Amino acid sequence: MSLEFDLIHRYFSHIGSPIVSEVLLGIGDDAAMVSSAPDPLVITVDTLVEGIHCFADDPADSWAQKALMVNLSDVSAMGATPFAFLLSLTIPAFDDAWLKAFSAALNAQASKSNVQLIGGDTTKGPRAVSITALGYVKDGHALKRSNAQVDDDIYVTGTIGLAAFYVYARSKGIEPGEHATRAYRYPNPRLDIGPRLCGLAHAAIDVSDGLLADLNHILTASQLGARLVQDNIPIAKEWFVCPEAEAFERAVTGGDDYVLCFTAPKSARALLLSLAESMEVPMVIIGETVEGSGILLDDKPWNGVLGYDHFS
Amino acid sequence: MSLEFDLIHRYFSHIGSPIVSEVLLGIGDDAAMVSSAPDPLVITVDTLVEGIHCFADDPADSWAQKALMVNLSDVSAMGATPFAFLLSLTIPAFDDAWLKAFSAALNAQASKSNVQLIGGDTTKGPRAVSITALGYVKDGHALKRSNAQVDDDIYVTGTIGLAAFYVYARSKGIEPGEHATRAYRYPNPRLDIGPRLCGLAHAAIDVSDGLLADLNHILTASQLGARLVQDNIPIAKEWFVCPEAEAFERAVTGGDDYVLCFTAPKSARALLLSLAESMEVPMVIIGETVEGSGILLDDKPWNGVLGYDHFS
Repeated sequence: MSLEFDLIHRYFSHIGSPIVSEVLLGIGDDAAMVSSAPDPLVITVDTLVEGIHCFADDPADSWAQKALMVNLSDVSAMGATPFAFLLSLTIPAFDDAWLKAFSAALNAQASKSNVQLIGGDTTKGPRAVSITALGYVKDGHALKRSNAQVDDDIYVTGTIGLAAFYVYARSKGIEPGEHATRAYRYPNPRLDIGPRLCGLAHAAIDVSDGLLADLNHILTASQLGARLVQDNIPIAKEWFVCPEAEAFERAVTGGDDYVLCFTAPKSARALLLSLAESMEVPMVIIGETVEGSGILLDDKPWNGVLGYDHFS
Repeated sequence: MSLEFDLIHRYFSHIGSPIVSEVLLGIGDDAAMVSSAPDPLVITVDTLVEGIHCFADDPADSWAQKALMVNLSDVSAMGATPFAFLLSLTIPAFDDAWLKAFSAALNAQASKSNVQLIGGDTTKGPRAVSITALGYVKDGHALKRSNAQVDDDIYVTGTIGLAAFYVYARSKGIEPGEHATRAYRYPNPRLDIGPRLCGLAHAAIDVSDGLLADLNHILTASQLGARLVQDNIPIAKEWFVCPEAEAFERAVTGGDDYVLCFTAPKSARALLLSLAESMEVPMVIIGETVEGSGILLDDKPWNGVLGYDHFS
C-alpha cells in the first residue's frame, strides 16, 4: 500500500470506529491485518491508473501482471503468503482483444502465484485496475515496519532502479532496452522471500515508491535513522549512461523495484546469507540502522528527495 | 459486488489457481468468503467512477457516504457484520476542501457503522473511489444467492426506485425533490437486517443494479424462476408523475436502492413479519419463487430489460 504519507496522515489516519477489536494492524504498513484463526489475515489494495503507473502504450498483459504482482508483493513484504485477490476493473469501453489478453495474463500470473480471483467489479470509465490481495501470516510473525531495532543490518533483495531507468529513458528519448522494459511492465517479485524472513528479520517493506522513501517508512515507524554505504547498493547497470551522482539519485528514488528492503539483527547475518544462497536470491547489506532519524549516505546526511510522490 | 455478469463470466470466471482451500466462496455473490475462525471472513469491493455512479456535481460527502455504504450493504447482504474497510482514492489534484469534506463524511459514516479504515492508497487521476469492505458471518449462516428454494416468498426491505427517480428527473430537467436526491447521494442502508435474516432467509442480495436484475441473480444462481405481483412492489411515489407502465419499469430496473431482496420459506413468514415490526423495517412480500427460470409479472413473462449494464 503506497499511501501518500502526508495526505493520508492529514486526512485519513483515524477514520471510523477506533475500537474495532478485529483489527490487528491498521493504516501505515504494507498491508493491514485482521483477526483470523489460526493465522491472522493480511490485506492490501493498490490501484494502477493510466498515465500515472502505466503508459498508454503498455499492453494489456502488462496491466494484469503489474496490478497483481505489486499487491502480492505487499502481502509478501508482511511475511505473509497470498492466496486470493479481488479485481476492480475500470475500462473505457468493451474491448474484446484487450480483455482477452488481460484476463489470460492475469490467469497465468495468478496460477503461477497460487492465488485465486474471488470477486470484484467492472465499470466503464478511464482505465484503472485496482486489486485487493489477501494472505495469511504465521501468528506473531508479521514483518511490520515499526519493528526495526538499532544496529540492525539493512538488506535489499535485488537490483535497484531498473524500472525507474525505463521511465527515465522514455522521458529522454533513449532506448530503454529489453531488461528495463520488462522490469517496468512485468514486475515479477519473488513471493517466497517474505515468509522465509519471519523470525529472522525485524522489519520489512517492498520497494515501490523508491528505496530511500521506503526505507524511510521503516525508519520513521521504528524511530530510527540509517547509515548507508553507497557502493553497496546494487544499482542497475543501465544507469551507467548517466553521470554517477545523477544515476544514483534517480535509481534510489525511482521506485517500482518490488524487491524487499528489510532489517535484521547482525546475529542473523550468517543464517540470512545462507538462506539467500539456498533460495538463490540476492540479499545485499546496504547499511545499518542507527539511533536518531534520517538517512546518512557514506556519513553525509541525505537531503535530497526520497522517492515518488503523486501530489508533489 | 455488482459484477457485469456477461463480461465477468466470459473473461474472469476462472482466474488463477483453482485449488485454493482457503477460499470458501468465490466470484458470483454479493461478497466472497475466505477461511477464518471462528467465523468466515466476507469481503467485497466496489468502485465509484465520476460520470458513471456519481455526477460531477455530487458533493464530496456524497462520494464518501455512497462509496462506503454500497460496500457495507454488500457485506450485510451476505448476513455478515462489517468491521473494517480499505480505501483506494483517485483524485485529479490535491484539493484541501474536497479532502476535508470527504474524510469528515467518511469518518462520520464509518463511526456510525462501527467500521474502521485500515488501509488503502491514494493516486492522482480521474476521480474514482474504490472501497474494499470486510465482515464476519456466523459460520454456516451466509446468505448466498444460490440457496433459494422453490416456493420461497420473495421479500424486499424498502422502497424501490427512489434513487433511480433522481437520475431520471435530472435527465428530463424535472426537479427530483429532496427525498430522491438524498436517496441517490446518501444511500443509508440498514446494516442490521442482513445478519438478523441468518437462519430465516434462504438467499439474499442487495438491490444495486435494479430489483429485477438482482432478483434474477438469485434466480439464476438457484436455478429457479419467480412469480411477482406488481401491485405488491413498493415503488417510490415520486414516479407517479410518469405513466404507470413506464414508472414501474424504470423503478424496478433503475438500481441504487440498497435495500435487500431475499427469499425465505413460507414457514418463516410469521417470524419475519414480527422481526420486521420489532426492527421497524419494512419487509414486503412481492412474490414467490417457482420451478423454471425467468420472471413472471402478474403471470406474464417479463421480457424487458432487467437492470443497468455499464457495457450495453
